[in-house]
Amino acid sequence: MNRYVALEGIDGAGKTSVSTALALLLEEAGHEVMRVREPGGTAAGEGLRRILLDGPPVTPWAEALMFAAARAQLVTDVIRPALDRGAWVLSDRSVYSSLAYQGAGRQLGVDRVRRINQPGLGSTWPDVVLLLTVSPQQGLDRQARPDRIGSQGLAFLEAVAKGFAGLARDEPDRFVVVDAGRPMEQVLAAAWNALEARA
Amino acid sequence: MNRYVALEGIDGAGKTSVSTALALLLEEAGHEVMRVREPGGTAAGEGLRRILLDGPPVTPWAEALMFAAARAQLVTDVIRPALDRGAWVLSDRSVYSSLAYQGAGRQLGVDRVRRINQPGLGSTWPDVVLLLTVSPQQGLDRQARPDRIGSQGLAFLEAVAKGFAGLARDEPDRFVVVDAGRPMEQVLAAAWNALEARA
Repeated sequence: MNRYVALEGIDGAGKTSVSTALALLLEEAGHEVMRVREPGGTAAGEGLRRILLDGPPVTPWAEALMFAAARAQLVTDVIRPALDRGAWVLSDRSVYSSLAYQGAGRQLGVDRVRRINQPGLGSTWPDVVLLLTVSPQQGLDRQARPDRIGSQGLAFLEAVAKGFAGLARDEPDRFVVVDAGRPMEQVLAAAWNALEARA
Repeated sequence: MNRYVALEGIDGAGKTSVSTALALLLEEAGHEVMRVREPGGTAAGEGLRRILLDGPPVTPWAEALMFAAARAQLVTDVIRPALDRGAWVLSDRSVYSSLAYQGAGRQLGVDRVRRINQPGLGSTWPDVVLLLTVSPQQGLDRQARPDRIGSQGLAFLEAVAKGFAGLARDEPDRFVVVDAGRPMEQVLAAAWNALEARA
Protein backbone atom coordinates (compact mmCIF):
# COMPACT_ATOMS: atom_id res chain seq x y z
CA MET A 1 0.00 0.00 0.00
CA ASN A 2 3.07 2.30 0.15
CA ARG A 3 1.94 3.91 3.40
CA TYR A 4 4.90 2.93 5.59
CA VAL A 5 7.43 5.62 4.73
CA ALA A 6 10.88 5.71 6.30
CA LEU A 7 12.99 8.87 6.34
CA GLU A 8 16.61 7.83 6.14
CA GLY A 9 20.03 9.40 5.89
CA ILE A 10 22.96 10.33 8.07
CA ASP A 11 22.50 12.71 10.99
CA GLY A 12 22.05 16.26 9.79
CA ALA A 13 20.35 15.29 6.52
CA GLY A 14 17.12 16.99 7.60
CA LYS A 15 14.92 13.94 8.23
CA THR A 16 12.89 15.54 11.02
CA SER A 17 12.09 18.71 9.06
CA VAL A 18 11.03 16.77 5.98
CA SER A 19 8.94 14.38 8.07
CA THR A 20 7.16 17.26 9.79
CA ALA A 21 6.29 18.90 6.48
CA LEU A 22 5.19 15.64 4.84
CA ALA A 23 2.93 14.89 7.81
CA LEU A 24 1.21 18.26 7.36
CA LEU A 25 0.77 17.71 3.63
CA LEU A 26 -0.64 14.20 4.14
CA GLU A 27 -3.04 15.40 6.83
CA GLU A 28 -4.20 18.25 4.58
CA ALA A 29 -4.93 15.61 1.98
CA GLY A 30 -7.21 13.92 4.52
CA HIS A 31 -5.00 11.06 5.69
CA GLU A 32 -4.33 9.88 9.21
CA VAL A 33 -0.60 10.13 9.88
CA MET A 34 1.33 8.33 12.59
CA ARG A 35 4.84 9.69 13.19
CA VAL A 36 7.39 7.51 14.94
CA ARG A 37 11.11 7.58 15.53
CA GLU A 38 13.65 4.84 16.01
CA PRO A 39 14.70 3.78 18.49
CA GLY A 40 11.73 4.65 20.66
CA GLY A 41 7.97 4.93 20.61
CA THR A 42 7.27 2.25 23.23
CA ALA A 43 8.21 1.92 26.90
CA ALA A 44 10.89 -0.65 26.10
CA GLY A 45 12.02 1.33 23.06
CA GLU A 46 12.55 4.54 25.01
CA GLY A 47 14.52 2.60 27.63
CA LEU A 48 16.65 1.14 24.86
CA ARG A 49 17.07 4.59 23.32
CA ARG A 50 18.58 5.88 26.57
CA ILE A 51 21.01 2.95 26.75
CA LEU A 52 21.95 3.30 23.08
CA LEU A 53 22.30 7.04 22.69
CA ASP A 54 23.23 8.27 26.16
CA GLY A 55 24.91 5.31 27.84
CA PRO A 56 28.51 4.11 27.71
CA PRO A 57 29.65 2.53 24.43
CA VAL A 58 28.44 -0.99 23.70
CA THR A 59 29.79 -3.67 21.39
CA PRO A 60 28.61 -3.49 17.77
CA TRP A 61 26.49 -6.63 18.07
CA ALA A 62 24.86 -5.51 21.32
CA GLU A 63 24.07 -2.23 19.59
CA ALA A 64 22.56 -3.95 16.55
CA LEU A 65 20.49 -6.30 18.74
CA MET A 66 19.14 -3.45 20.86
CA PHE A 67 18.07 -1.48 17.80
CA ALA A 68 16.40 -4.63 16.45
CA ALA A 69 14.58 -5.17 19.78
CA ALA A 70 13.28 -1.61 19.92
CA ARG A 71 12.14 -1.96 16.31
CA ALA A 72 10.34 -5.27 16.86
CA GLN A 73 8.37 -3.72 19.72
CA LEU A 74 7.54 -0.57 17.73
CA VAL A 75 6.40 -2.51 14.67
CA THR A 76 4.16 -4.80 16.72
CA ASP A 77 2.66 -2.19 19.05
CA VAL A 78 2.44 0.90 16.86
CA ILE A 79 3.33 0.60 13.17
CA ARG A 80 1.41 -2.57 12.24
CA PRO A 81 -1.81 -1.44 13.99
CA ALA A 82 -1.58 2.02 12.36
CA LEU A 83 -1.12 0.52 8.89
CA ASP A 84 -3.96 -1.94 9.52
CA ARG A 85 -6.39 0.87 10.24
CA GLY A 86 -5.36 2.73 7.07
CA ALA A 87 -3.02 5.36 8.50
CA TRP A 88 0.22 6.51 6.94
CA VAL A 89 3.33 5.93 9.03
CA LEU A 90 6.23 8.38 8.78
CA SER A 91 9.21 6.90 10.54
CA ASP A 92 12.35 8.81 11.43
CA ARG A 93 14.77 5.94 10.70
CA SER A 94 13.95 2.25 10.19
CA VAL A 95 15.60 -1.12 9.71
CA TYR A 96 17.57 0.48 6.88
CA SER A 97 19.43 2.63 9.41
CA SER A 98 20.59 -0.56 11.10
CA LEU A 99 21.72 -1.99 7.78
CA ALA A 100 23.69 1.19 7.01
CA TYR A 101 25.00 2.07 10.50
CA GLN A 102 25.65 -1.34 12.04
CA GLY A 103 25.93 -3.37 8.83
CA ALA A 104 28.14 -1.00 6.84
CA GLY A 105 29.36 1.59 9.39
CA ARG A 106 30.27 -0.91 12.11
CA GLN A 107 31.17 -3.50 9.46
CA LEU A 108 28.96 -6.26 10.87
CA GLY A 109 27.74 -7.01 7.35
CA VAL A 110 24.45 -5.86 5.86
CA ASP A 111 23.11 -9.40 5.42
CA ARG A 112 23.95 -10.47 8.95
CA VAL A 113 22.21 -7.41 10.39
CA ARG A 114 19.24 -8.07 8.11
CA ARG A 115 18.98 -11.60 9.51
CA ILE A 116 18.76 -10.53 13.16
CA ASN A 117 16.03 -8.02 12.26
CA GLN A 118 13.91 -10.21 10.01
CA PRO A 119 12.13 -12.44 12.54
CA GLY A 120 10.87 -9.54 14.67
CA LEU A 121 9.56 -7.59 11.68
CA GLY A 122 7.89 -10.28 9.61
CA SER A 123 6.48 -8.65 6.50
CA THR A 124 6.37 -5.14 7.99
CA TRP A 125 9.24 -3.44 6.18
CA PRO A 126 9.07 0.16 4.94
CA ASP A 127 7.23 0.43 1.64
CA VAL A 128 9.11 3.59 0.70
CA VAL A 129 12.50 4.74 1.92
CA LEU A 130 13.12 8.44 1.36
CA LEU A 131 16.90 8.62 1.49
CA LEU A 132 18.00 12.20 2.13
CA THR A 133 21.58 12.59 1.03
CA VAL A 134 24.06 15.21 2.20
CA SER A 135 27.84 14.98 2.27
CA PRO A 136 29.11 13.55 5.57
CA GLN A 137 30.88 16.85 6.26
CA GLN A 138 27.67 18.78 5.69
CA GLY A 139 25.82 16.34 7.95
CA LEU A 140 28.36 16.89 10.71
CA ASP A 141 28.16 20.68 10.34
CA ARG A 142 24.37 20.59 10.68
CA GLN A 143 24.20 18.51 13.87
CA ALA A 144 23.18 20.61 16.83
CA ARG A 145 23.91 18.06 19.58
CA PRO A 146 25.30 14.82 18.21
CA ASP A 147 24.39 11.69 20.18
CA ARG A 148 26.87 8.89 20.83
CA ILE A 149 26.34 7.23 17.46
CA GLY A 150 26.05 10.47 15.48
CA SER A 151 29.36 11.71 16.84
CA GLN A 152 31.57 8.95 15.45
CA GLY A 153 33.48 11.21 13.07
CA LEU A 154 33.78 11.64 9.36
CA ALA A 155 35.19 8.23 8.35
CA PHE A 156 32.32 6.43 10.08
CA LEU A 157 29.68 8.68 8.50
CA GLU A 158 31.27 8.14 5.08
CA ALA A 159 30.98 4.37 5.54
CA VAL A 160 27.33 4.78 6.60
CA ALA A 161 26.57 7.01 3.59
CA LYS A 162 28.19 4.44 1.30
CA GLY A 163 26.06 1.77 2.98
CA PHE A 164 22.88 3.74 2.30
CA ALA A 165 23.91 4.27 -1.33
CA GLY A 166 24.48 0.54 -1.78
CA LEU A 167 21.07 -0.28 -0.30
CA ALA A 168 19.42 2.23 -2.65
CA ARG A 169 21.13 0.58 -5.62
CA ASP A 170 20.08 -2.89 -4.45
CA GLU A 171 16.43 -1.95 -3.85
CA PRO A 172 15.55 0.70 -6.44
CA ASP A 173 11.80 0.04 -6.15
CA ARG A 174 11.78 0.86 -2.47
CA PHE A 175 14.26 3.73 -2.35
CA VAL A 176 13.74 7.33 -3.42
CA VAL A 177 17.03 9.21 -3.24
CA VAL A 178 16.62 12.94 -2.59
CA ASP A 179 19.56 15.32 -2.69
CA ALA A 180 19.10 17.10 0.63
CA GLY A 181 21.97 19.53 0.15
CA ARG A 182 19.54 21.86 -1.65
CA PRO A 183 17.17 24.43 -0.12
CA MET A 184 14.42 22.83 1.98
CA GLU A 185 11.58 23.78 -0.41
CA GLN A 186 13.25 21.84 -3.23
CA VAL A 187 13.96 18.87 -0.95
CA LEU A 188 10.38 18.82 0.24
CA ALA A 189 8.96 19.11 -3.27
CA ALA A 190 11.05 16.14 -4.41
CA ALA A 191 9.96 14.06 -1.39
CA TRP A 192 6.30 14.94 -1.82
CA ASN A 193 6.35 14.18 -5.53
CA ALA A 194 7.82 10.77 -4.80
CA LEU A 195 5.06 9.96 -2.30
CA GLU A 196 2.29 11.23 -4.57
CA ALA A 197 3.62 9.14 -7.43
CA ARG A 198 3.29 6.03 -5.27
CA ALA A 199 0.10 6.83 -3.35
CA MET B 1 39.03 -25.86 28.55
CA ASN B 2 35.66 -26.49 30.24
CA ARG B 3 35.95 -23.38 32.42
CA TYR B 4 32.83 -21.55 31.22
CA VAL B 5 30.10 -23.18 33.29
CA ALA B 6 26.45 -22.18 32.96
CA LEU B 7 23.91 -22.95 35.67
CA GLU B 8 20.58 -23.54 33.98
CA GLY B 9 17.07 -24.55 34.89
CA ILE B 10 13.70 -23.00 35.55
CA ASP B 11 13.28 -20.44 38.32
CA GLY B 12 13.37 -22.08 41.72
CA ALA B 13 15.75 -24.86 40.66
CA GLY B 14 18.43 -23.59 43.03
CA LYS B 15 20.93 -22.16 40.54
CA THR B 16 22.18 -19.39 42.79
CA SER B 17 22.80 -21.65 45.79
CA VAL B 18 24.67 -24.20 43.68
CA SER B 19 26.69 -21.48 41.98
CA THR B 20 27.69 -19.97 45.33
CA ALA B 21 28.85 -23.33 46.66
CA LEU B 22 30.71 -24.25 43.47
CA ALA B 23 32.51 -20.90 43.51
CA LEU B 24 33.74 -21.59 47.05
CA LEU B 25 34.91 -25.08 46.11
CA LEU B 26 36.74 -23.84 43.01
CA GLU B 27 38.40 -21.03 44.96
CA GLU B 28 39.48 -23.50 47.66
CA ALA B 29 41.07 -25.52 44.87
CA GLY B 30 43.10 -22.43 43.95
CA HIS B 31 41.18 -21.17 40.92
CA GLU B 32 40.10 -17.66 40.09
CA VAL B 33 36.31 -17.62 39.75
CA MET B 34 34.23 -14.98 38.00
CA ARG B 35 30.51 -15.15 38.78
CA VAL B 36 28.06 -13.49 36.41
CA ARG B 37 24.33 -13.50 35.90
CA GLU B 38 22.19 -13.00 32.82
CA PRO B 39 20.89 -10.58 31.91
CA GLY B 40 23.27 -8.12 33.56
CA GLY B 41 26.90 -7.66 34.49
CA THR B 42 27.52 -4.57 32.33
CA ALA B 43 26.01 -1.08 32.32
CA ALA B 44 23.93 -1.87 29.23
CA GLY B 45 23.07 -5.32 30.57
CA GLU B 46 21.72 -3.98 33.86
CA GLY B 47 19.63 -1.44 31.95
CA LEU B 48 18.28 -4.25 29.79
CA ARG B 49 17.62 -6.34 32.89
CA ARG B 50 15.39 -3.59 34.29
CA ILE B 51 13.43 -3.35 31.03
CA LEU B 52 13.09 -7.13 30.75
CA LEU B 53 12.27 -8.14 34.29
CA ASP B 54 10.56 -5.07 35.77
CA GLY B 55 9.07 -3.24 32.78
CA PRO B 56 5.79 -3.73 30.95
CA PRO B 57 5.50 -6.86 28.79
CA VAL B 58 7.35 -6.86 25.48
CA THR B 59 6.85 -8.91 22.34
CA PRO B 60 8.61 -12.30 22.27
CA TRP B 61 11.10 -11.18 19.61
CA ALA B 62 11.95 -7.94 21.39
CA GLU B 63 12.50 -10.02 24.53
CA ALA B 64 14.77 -12.47 22.73
CA LEU B 65 16.76 -9.67 21.07
CA MET B 66 17.27 -7.82 24.37
CA PHE B 67 18.54 -10.96 26.10
CA ALA B 68 20.89 -11.53 23.15
CA ALA B 69 22.14 -7.92 23.34
CA ALA B 70 22.84 -8.13 27.09
CA ARG B 71 24.65 -11.41 26.49
CA ALA B 72 26.81 -10.10 23.64
CA GLN B 73 27.98 -7.25 25.86
CA LEU B 74 28.66 -9.55 28.83
CA VAL B 75 30.59 -12.07 26.77
CA THR B 76 32.77 -9.38 25.18
CA ASP B 77 33.43 -7.27 28.27
CA VAL B 78 33.53 -9.85 31.08
CA ILE B 79 33.36 -13.54 30.16
CA ARG B 80 35.89 -13.68 27.30
CA PRO B 81 38.53 -11.65 29.19
CA ALA B 82 38.05 -13.80 32.32
CA LEU B 83 38.46 -17.03 30.34
CA ASP B 84 41.49 -15.61 28.54
CA ARG B 85 43.31 -14.97 31.80
CA GLY B 86 42.57 -18.51 33.03
CA ALA B 87 39.63 -17.87 35.35
CA TRP B 88 36.57 -20.05 35.70
CA VAL B 89 33.28 -18.41 34.86
CA LEU B 90 30.13 -19.47 36.71
CA SER B 91 27.15 -17.97 34.95
CA ASP B 92 23.65 -17.88 36.36
CA ARG B 93 21.87 -18.52 33.03
CA SER B 94 23.33 -18.33 29.52
CA VAL B 95 22.32 -18.52 25.88
CA TYR B 96 20.66 -21.85 26.73
CA SER B 97 18.08 -19.98 28.82
CA SER B 98 17.14 -18.02 25.71
CA LEU B 99 16.85 -21.22 23.69
CA ALA B 100 14.57 -22.75 26.35
CA TYR B 101 12.56 -19.68 27.43
CA GLN B 102 12.19 -17.77 24.17
CA GLY B 103 12.79 -20.62 21.73
CA ALA B 104 10.63 -23.27 23.42
CA GLY B 105 8.59 -21.38 26.04
CA ARG B 106 7.63 -18.48 23.79
CA GLN B 107 7.59 -20.79 20.78
CA LEU B 108 9.91 -18.66 18.64
CA GLY B 109 11.84 -21.78 17.69
CA VAL B 110 15.13 -22.92 19.20
CA ASP B 111 17.06 -22.61 15.93
CA ARG B 112 15.79 -19.12 15.17
CA VAL B 113 16.75 -17.92 18.64
CA ARG B 114 20.14 -19.58 18.25
CA ARG B 115 20.68 -17.63 15.03
CA ILE B 116 20.10 -14.21 16.56
CA ASN B 117 22.51 -15.06 19.38
CA GLN B 118 25.30 -16.61 17.35
CA PRO B 119 26.93 -13.52 15.79
CA GLY B 120 27.32 -11.67 19.12
CA LEU B 121 28.84 -14.70 20.88
CA GLY B 122 31.25 -16.06 18.30
CA SER B 123 32.91 -19.13 19.76
CA THR B 124 32.21 -18.19 23.38
CA TRP B 125 29.48 -20.65 24.31
CA PRO B 126 29.30 -22.40 27.69
CA ASP B 127 31.64 -25.39 27.87
CA VAL B 128 29.49 -27.07 30.50
CA VAL B 129 25.79 -26.57 31.17
CA LEU B 130 24.71 -27.76 34.60
CA LEU B 131 20.99 -28.23 34.13
CA LEU B 132 19.28 -28.32 37.51
CA THR B 133 15.92 -30.00 37.12
CA VAL B 134 12.90 -29.64 39.38
CA SER B 135 9.26 -30.11 38.52
CA PRO B 136 7.65 -26.88 37.30
CA GLN B 137 5.32 -26.96 40.31
CA GLN B 138 8.24 -27.32 42.69
CA GLY B 139 10.00 -24.46 40.89
CA LEU B 140 6.95 -22.25 41.32
CA ASP B 141 6.65 -23.16 45.00
CA ARG B 142 10.28 -22.23 45.64
CA GLN B 143 10.21 -18.78 44.05
CA ALA B 144 10.37 -16.04 46.65
CA ARG B 145 9.60 -13.07 44.37
CA PRO B 146 8.95 -14.15 40.79
CA ASP B 147 9.99 -11.62 38.13
CA ARG B 148 7.89 -10.94 35.04
CA ILE B 149 9.27 -13.90 33.11
CA GLY B 150 9.39 -16.28 36.07
CA SER B 151 5.73 -15.65 36.86
CA GLN B 152 4.23 -16.93 33.62
CA GLY B 153 2.47 -19.86 35.20
CA LEU B 154 2.74 -23.60 35.07
CA ALA B 155 2.08 -24.26 31.36
CA PHE B 156 4.83 -21.85 30.33
CA LEU B 157 7.34 -23.36 32.78
CA GLU B 158 6.48 -26.84 31.56
CA ALA B 159 7.27 -25.78 27.98
CA VAL B 160 10.55 -24.27 29.17
CA ALA B 161 11.48 -27.42 31.11
CA LYS B 162 10.71 -29.50 28.03
CA GLY B 163 12.90 -27.14 26.00
CA PHE B 164 15.81 -27.62 28.39
CA ALA B 165 15.37 -31.40 28.29
CA GLY B 166 15.46 -31.34 24.49
CA LEU B 167 18.65 -29.27 24.47
CA ALA B 168 20.26 -31.68 26.93
CA ARG B 169 19.40 -34.61 24.63
CA ASP B 170 20.76 -32.76 21.58
CA GLU B 171 24.03 -31.77 23.22
CA PRO B 172 24.94 -34.57 25.65
CA ASP B 173 28.63 -33.61 25.71
CA ARG B 174 27.87 -30.14 26.96
CA PHE B 175 25.01 -30.85 29.36
CA VAL B 176 25.14 -32.35 32.82
CA VAL B 177 21.63 -32.96 34.10
CA VAL B 178 21.34 -32.83 37.88
CA ASP B 179 18.13 -33.77 39.68
CA ALA B 180 17.72 -30.71 41.90
CA GLY B 181 14.64 -32.00 43.72
CA ARG B 182 16.97 -33.73 46.18
CA PRO B 183 18.61 -32.26 49.31
CA MET B 184 21.16 -29.55 48.49
CA GLU B 185 24.15 -31.59 49.63
CA GLN B 186 23.34 -34.29 47.08
CA VAL B 187 22.73 -31.72 44.33
CA LEU B 188 26.00 -30.02 45.08
CA ALA B 189 27.95 -33.28 45.17
CA ALA B 190 26.58 -34.25 41.75
CA ALA B 191 27.41 -30.82 40.29
CA TRP B 192 30.91 -30.81 41.75
CA ASN B 193 31.65 -34.34 40.55
CA ALA B 194 30.62 -33.31 37.04
CA LEU B 195 32.99 -30.33 37.06
CA GLU B 196 35.88 -32.31 38.52
CA ALA B 197 35.41 -34.98 35.86
CA ARG B 198 35.82 -32.33 33.15
CA ALA B 199 38.47 -30.10 34.77
